[in-house]
Amino acid sequence: MKKINIYQVSTLALGAAFIILAYTKTSSDKAMETSKKEAVVEAIHSRKSVRKYISRPVSKDDLLTLIKAGMAAPTAKNAQPWAFIALSERRTLDMLADGMPYGKMLKAAPSAIVVCGNLEKDAGGNLWMLDCSAAAQNILLAAEALGLGAVWATAYPYNDRMAAVAKALELPEHIVPLCVIPVGYPEGNESPKNKWKEENVKWEKWS
Amino acid sequence: MKKINIYQVSTLALGAAFIILAYTKTSSDKAMETSKKEAVVEAIHSRKSVRKYISRPVSKDDLLTLIKAGMAAPTAKNAQPWAFIALSERRTLDMLADGMPYGKMLKAAPSAIVVCGNLEKDAGGNLWMLDCSAAAQNILLAAEALGLGAVWATAYPYNDRMAAVAKALELPEHIVPLCVIPVGYPEGNESPKNKWKEENVKWEKWS
Repeated sequence: MKKINIYQVSTLALGAAFIILAYTKTSSDKAMETSKKEAVVEAIHSRKSVRKYISRPVSKDDLLTLIKAGMAAPTAKNAQPWAFIALSERRTLDMLADGMPYGKMLKAAPSAIVVCGNLEKDAGGNLWMLDCSAAAQNILLAAEALGLGAVWATAYPYNDRMAAVAKALELPEHIVPLCVIPVGYPEGNESPKNKWKEENVKWEKWS
Repeated sequence: MKKINIYQVSTLALGAAFIILAYTKTSSDKAMETSKKEAVVEAIHSRKSVRKYISRPVSKDDLLTLIKAGMAAPTAKNAQPWAFIALSERRTLDMLADGMPYGKMLKAAPSAIVVCGNLEKDAGGNLWMLDCSAAAQNILLAAEALGLGAVWATAYPYNDRMAAVAKALELPEHIVPLCVIPVGYPEGNESPKNKWKEENVKWEKWS
């Protein structure tokens, strides 16, 4: 019987290992391609209203990432009729919590972003509130992607809430708060609502 | 001089190849983790208004993926005051194109999704238009993720456009079109607008 050389064995072993590794790398590359598409749809579906946060602060960089995401939303006639105010001061967050009937979660939130319409830049017919809503949705999705929890706390169309926010942030008259978005690291395991209803889809026309 | 065995050479070569492959696989795994987060923020920033499409049809499955993304948006008081109508019939798309002054791109679009408010489900104060705007933004982002081109063609608040859409789709009175979103595979290379403006960000309060 021919003597087996150590290098023959290692060639075989390494060859096998190489093939296995190459195979897993190819599949993980494919998965990455797919995951880029799926990550977006996944984030849209896993976004949820988060109202409880741990005390860990949110960095200014992350708040800016959220605001930049907001500013990437489309606006009618490219009017960009908006302003974004980032808050991390306890006193201001508490003032908002006290002034908004459904804003109690702000007491525990380390930060918030207030999405406002700028009436001086509005393209007409209250288009600002559509544009700002699209921006708010971008912020909520970016928060989900960053592992942050957030929720749309309604200011507009309630005059008392809008007045409370305007007072706390010293807003001029042409700057109108649409919503306050508390932002923090989630404490618990809030889950997304399943709002899929087939009855809300029609094909080609209404009936 | 000692004779070099072929298996010694192949062991060395395979060993080196193995190390290189293992290294690139580790980095691509790390990149995948990061990319899941980044893919979302990236999609938000790469979404653009696409008004030119090739003739390739959009599948019913893809249209449904977009509508499901829309229905994952948050709504005030969980009212879900919306309805989504998917169109692929040439005649209807052309009727919309003719009825909407800025809707000419619908002539070339293979499909469209019309985002409507359901006034019977509105939680009050026109909240439907905020909820439906968030839903429309989800649809635009999901389209971007799927490699589709789309654009928010404004219907609300223009009575003539809303009437044209309502007529083409035979909408009942309580169903109000917010926007028409043509959907197709992009023909060209439309780029996203950079709308970042530092002046639109404030920290802690207005002034």
